[in-house]
Amino acid sequence: MNGNRFGRLFQVTTYGESHGDAMGVTVSGCPAGLELDEDDVQAELDRRKPGQSMITTSRGEPDAVVINSGTQDGYTTGTPIGMVIENKDARSGKYEPYVTAPRPSHGDFTYSAKFGTRNWGGGGRSSARETVNWVAAGAIAQKILAEHDIEVKAHVNQIGDIEAPPVTFEEMLEHAEENDVRCAHPETADRMLEKIEEYQKAGDSIGGSVYFEARGVPRGLGSPRFDSFPARLGQAMFAVPATTGVEYGLGREAREWTGKDRNEDWEFDEESDPTPVGNKHGGLQGGITTGQPVYGEVSFHAPTSIPKEQTTVDWETGEEKEIQVVGRHDPVLPPRAVPVVEAMLNLTIVDFMLLSGRINPDRTDARPGEYDTDYHPSSPRDE
Amino acid sequence: MNGNRFGRLFQVTTYGESHGDAMGVTVSGCPAGLELDEDDVQAELDRRKPGQSMITTSRGEPDAVVINSGTQDGYTTGTPIGMVIENKDARSGKYEPYVTAPRPSHGDFTYSAKFGTRNWGGGGRSSARETVNWVAAGAIAQKILAEHDIEVKAHVNQIGDIEAPPVTFEEMLEHAEENDVRCAHPETADRMLEKIEEYQKAGDSIGGSVYFEARGVPRGLGSPRFDSFPARLGQAMFAVPATTGVEYGLGREAREWTGKDRNEDWEFDEESDPTPVGNKHGGLQGGITTGQPVYGEVSFHAPTSIPKEQTTVDWETGEEKEIQVVGRHDPVLPPRAVPVVEAMLNLTIVDFMLLSGRINPDRTDARPGEYDTDYHPSSPRDE
Amino acid sequence: MNGNRFGRLFQVTTYGESHGDAMGVTVSGCPAGLELDEDDVQAELDRRKPGQSMITTSRGEPDAVVINSGTQDGYTTGTPIGMVIENKDARSGKYEPYVTAPRPSHGDFTYSAKFGTRNWGGGGRSSARETVNWVAAGAIAQKILAEHDIEVKAHVNQIGDIEAPPVTFEEMLEHAEENDVRCAHPETADRMLEKIEEYQKAGDSIGGSVYFEARGVPRGLGSPRFDSFPARLGQAMFAVPATTGVEYGLGREAREWTGKDRNEDWEFDEESDPTPVGNKHGGLQGGITTGQPVYGEVSFHAPTSIPKEQTTVDWETGEEKEIQVVGRHDPVLPPRAVPVVEAMLNLTIVDFMLLSGRINPDRTDARPGEYDTDYHPSSPRDE
Amino acid sequence: MNGNRFGRLFQVTTYGESHGDAMGVTVSGCPAGLELDEDDVQAELDRRKPGQSMITTSRGEPDAVVINSGTQDGYTTGTPIGMVIENKDARSGKYEPYVTAPRPSHGDFTYSAKFGTRNWGGGGRSSARETVNWVAAGAIAQKILAEHDIEVKAHVNQIGDIEAPPVTFEEMLEHAEENDVRCAHPETADRMLEKIEEYQKAGDSIGGSVYFEARGVPRGLGSPRFDSFPARLGQAMFAVPATTGVEYGLGREAREWTGKDRNEDWEFDEESDPTPVGNKHGGLQGGITTGQPVYGEVSFHAPTSIPKEQTTVDWETGEEKEIQVVGRHDPVLPPRAVPVVEAMLNLTIVDFMLLSGRINPDRTDARPGEYDTDYHPSSPRDE
Repeated sequence: MNGNRFGRLFQVTTYGESHGDAMGVTVSGCPAGLELDEDDVQAELDRRKPGQSMITTSRGEPDAVVINSGTQDGYTTGTPIGMVIENKDARSGKYEPYVTAPRPSHGDFTYSAKFGTRNWGGGGRSSARETVNWVAAGAIAQKILAEHDIEVKAHVNQIGDIEAPPVTFEEMLEHAEENDVRCAHPETADRMLEKIEEYQKAGDSIGGSVYFEARGVPRGLGSPRFDSFPARLGQAMFAVPATTGVEYGLGREAREWTGKDRNEDWEFDEESDPTPVGNKHGGLQGGITTGQPVYGEVSFHAPTSIPKEQTTVDWETGEEKEIQVVGRHDPVLPPRAVPVVEAMLNLTIVDFMLLSGRINPDRTDARPGEYDTDYHPSSPRDE
Repeated sequence: MNGNRFGRLFQVTTYGESHGDAMGVTVSGCPAGLELDEDDVQAELDRRKPGQSMITTSRGEPDAVVINSGTQDGYTTGTPIGMVIENKDARSGKYEPYVTAPRPSHGDFTYSAKFGTRNWGGGGRSSARETVNWVAAGAIAQKILAEHDIEVKAHVNQIGDIEAPPVTFEEMLEHAEENDVRCAHPETADRMLEKIEEYQKAGDSIGGSVYFEARGVPRGLGSPRFDSFPARLGQAMFAVPATTGVEYGLGREAREWTGKDRNEDWEFDEESDPTPVGNKHGGLQGGITTGQPVYGEVSFHAPTSIPKEQTTVDWETGEEKEIQVVGRHDPVLPPRAVPVVEAMLNLTIVDFMLLSGRINPDRTDARPGEYDTDYHPSSPRDE
Repeated sequence: MNGNRFGRLFQVTTYGESHGDAMGVTVSGCPAGLELDEDDVQAELDRRKPGQSMITTSRGEPDAVVINSGTQDGYTTGTPIGMVIENKDARSGKYEPYVTAPRPSHGDFTYSAKFGTRNWGGGGRSSARETVNWVAAGAIAQKILAEHDIEVKAHVNQIGDIEAPPVTFEEMLEHAEENDVRCAHPETADRMLEKIEEYQKAGDSIGGSVYFEARGVPRGLGSPRFDSFPARLGQAMFAVPATTGVEYGLGREAREWTGKDRNEDWEFDEESDPTPVGNKHGGLQGGITTGQPVYGEVSFHAPTSIPKEQTTVDWETGEEKEIQVVGRHDPVLPPRAVPVVEAMLNLTIVDFMLLSGRINPDRTDARPGEYDTDYHPSSPRDE
Repeated sequence: MNGNRFGRLFQVTTYGESHGDAMGVTVSGCPAGLELDEDDVQAELDRRKPGQSMITTSRGEPDAVVINSGTQDGYTTGTPIGMVIENKDARSGKYEPYVTAPRPSHGDFTYSAKFGTRNWGGGGRSSARETVNWVAAGAIAQKILAEHDIEVKAHVNQIGDIEAPPVTFEEMLEHAEENDVRCAHPETADRMLEKIEEYQKAGDSIGGSVYFEARGVPRGLGSPRFDSFPARLGQAMFAVPATTGVEYGLGREAREWTGKDRNEDWEFDEESDPTPVGNKHGGLQGGITTGQPVYGEVSFHAPTSIPKEQTTVDWETGEEKEIQVVGRHDPVLPPRAVPVVEAMLNLTIVDFMLLSGRINPDRTDARPGEYDTDYHPSSPRDE
């Protein structure tokens, strides 16, 4: 067991190191009959990939995904989907000085301490490169959820001390992808970009955060107590590299709210079902979704790879030494974390949709004569 | 599957409703040979139990634990430990008005929405009463960890807008249990208590937070990526009722720190092993423990049970109605959440200790003639 | 982790030792709205319990089950069901001679070897007493399956060299419970009983087997490859104590069949769906159910507790010694294994029903106003 | 979830269809520091691959494995090992007639019934081709176990009605791989081969069985009750395609043994530890290993792909039709099943070794300065 699995029924299993031969992800539990080809996944990988702008690492990875199994004639078959993404621009050589002298605040030492060794090229297994697998799996989850009118979006709502004002879901959809920072408030995005470039020029990096929201999530998702919606979401978001905090609803601010102010009366919605007045609880009560939007924030620390001269120790020679991490690195993480946060949110929701029985892994309704019509329209006899 | 399990190797399985007959928890994966009796567990349950002070609910539960299996002659046998805690002071009647009219911001509606029914007495399965099971299991984890010099402590570091200054681990050990608020800074504790009583008198409640810290955690714990230490801790803490945010290290504040300021040089420790200078990262790098203290904070919203008149709707009659939640309730959650947070931290750590091989579930070292000496000292022939 | 869990979605977690205070089982994943009370479970426990006849142990256990949680007003609520069965007639004293001198062919030594200790009374955790938990959980599974017209039955088809001729499912339903051997072929049952009494008188015991069959199992159950229907069934049946072989369809005999003879043509059934002509494959093709009856056999070795003088060694004293196991024991296992085999088959099927989406853990179809009608008919307002 | 995972701590996750692009397997939980390259895995794949002799399918698959991650400089790093085996000789065209007309006794119908579709080329996901993944993973398990002096071997002990006499472990090692049937009794092997060729010429196929044995398995493995050694072994073996029965120890024969004859006295072994006299129980007592050899048998039905004219129905057209399965097929399964059975046994044992703490996933003993010496000897500074 080494922590490379996520999901109870929609199960994601990954492998890969930053500068290894390839990254790989196996998705099982995807229902049959979903229209899916490599372009669907590629579109999401392209949002995450490096080298998109001046404020992302210049590593030149095409991140081209290959689907090895689980689909036929452009539709999923219900069996495991195997995907591979080759690493093309690995340059391990740069990392030689750090093999036994850990870079400050990276996973170099802890991985070596755990295993007595590590893949030292580019952070190896500890690298954020692993998230390419998550985004690939998340793209499939997203396609499934779209059929159920569930949509997820995230944007960067804080960089350093610059905070974006609250934006609507529609504003996120419209503006988040328009700028390099992925902040849905264009004016704030400009200020953030300036700030980032400032830090970048100074050979420094800066922290920030991502706001996420999910619309259309039906009420009743979550398996309290240990697998409550927030508990599983917490695991998902804290798995994202560099995360230092996760909040939903009022988050940290809830500390200062009274019960009277936070509590929300109930009214009937347009379908005469009970619904809370307002949504300070982030769409979650008792660890289960209310049917309202689920939202929250993820805090990220500044990238640890900076060209500043820093001190480390070499555990082999027993000597102190100075190092500068001069690789190809991001000056800020949230912009590229946006698709990763979305992926983890999609993966969390799709798993609960399966657990609740809203998405059915098997075709329990179909009789044999009906199989082909819906499910593999381009079967050989049709051509 | 209904979310009642926690742990990969140290496995906790629970049942119970607030006003049902009993709460129960089964612990499997506990190594054999641990000295354990009901008093060990009871001591922790007593710290969590209701009616301890003026600022906790007056429900009169003795919370007496019975161990049904898994021990012999006062030592664990390596087989599942079954524990039962009877509910003695259940008074479901009070909850009749809320059966089809959900209390504001409780899990009443979401549980009913999920299952089409719910145990409506006192919140049923959604009640914080469930945490009695966690504290019982956590008490066993704590005993195991003590043998490895790992110690966990938490205290209340914020109530409303009153924040405690940073305290040392030793101060937490010394002062946290001295006052009803469980704040390790006595002066702040007094101010918090005043504030709580003020809200209580006003028929209101207030949010707050708990700071936690673990000492002696060896380096190398955590199974990145999805089962990294922070990911599992995130799941554990977000499972705690009323949690709205979880942070570790700099937490949310990390957003505003630069890489230069946050990064920490490496030096050799007293044993000539690399160790970071400082611990802004909360004892975790790359999702794995560094060997330094692990620390963080959990934010809690205000208790939702308040005597204020609120509006709800009855989904059976289709009518609006006013309700006042007049049961026996806490005006603030963090004081009683302290042992729960500690329990979840203990459970998370002990599971990683087993996963890392530092704690061995089997007696792989013993030869038959050596069994008795350590493991069941009071076997029948000794009497 | 100590192997006390079964089921992916219908999750059974157990504890208990033969002569401990109580046996316990927690069932999670049971859908809400199932009519269930202690009598339903008790009826099955009574079929398994000791002391039913001359050919079962005379241990006097009432095996009275208490349901601590998960039901309300006689209906399940979708939350974990906790059950406890107290041990009333434990007499550990008899087992003192065996604490460090293992009984032949029992689990005494292996448990001690594993854990360095063991609960030595009556076999402790290794005792067949544990199966009381399985039968309790299986009773719930059976009730759920009955709503889907799935029925399971088993009978004793071999004792020593006496084999029963093939019987129909209806014959099993009619005759299996009529005699102490639980053989559905009355004439053979008489011969078996004679044989058993003969061995019993000679201070010996004898092996045998149980034939099982499930009717109404829908096609499409099973999650190949590692969780195929036969794979999970194999795990379930080999968990039953004293099992030495599990077969389905032609079983061991398939070794001698040619493809031509074993293969089965396809025809249309009454609903114009494809169905195989015959059922030599035991209702399973490619690891998935075909919709035909699932059937197979489980082989059991003779009970190991016999009054014969046998030789053992004492690992504490280092001496050889003679022992006679004079407790209260069954001379043959299959008769009491029948309800256990049925329970494991029910548990396996219900889990696959949930995994296939045929049984829905959540009430995704209900709108609030509809909850009460079906689900808690005796809610307080009705009284 | 679709059944593509095996192992609690040594976790195998697979994907792939018979005529898809590639097969893939991810192994997590493999300890760091194991010397491993593609040749180690390839050697086992070559034993399983098609086209080895006249009595195996002529499909021309090189089965060349590529390791994408988890190793460095020829040693494992403790992180997930991703392996891919491309399918080179897929010829789906032949399977077109069977898309909606299921082949007798294959998984064609059940897969389609489950998912409403299936990958129809060569059996798709239901094909025995999947076992290439298991053998790849098993090769890693085998290397680990070799370091602990645990060795596994299997051979074909029955084909049709021809049974091999009992052979020793050494005879299996010496003779099993010498002949095309993989029977360790050379004379019987000749007779089996004749028989197989006879059936092959007649356009038919025949059943048979595989005997397996594991030496050096330490006492104490197994997690009763549901994860007992036989229970997990049962799951593993019943996952092997075409398995109809699994037995260990006396197996089915135990039905006819009395307790007196089967029970085994205890004596002291050469190390003065208790050991049973004889091993009729197959190395397992109470579901846990005794330290003696674990052995058993797996029954296989005849291959279902035979050129005989058979009747099927087309669920799309609603018509009956005659089919002959004329692809490239094995006339008998056990010879190629031998490496698969060995793989599943290795995977089962290695998982229990990790669960028992005998194999440690982490390097809890090493101090930093000691890491390199053992674990990545060819680190860059050495070159």
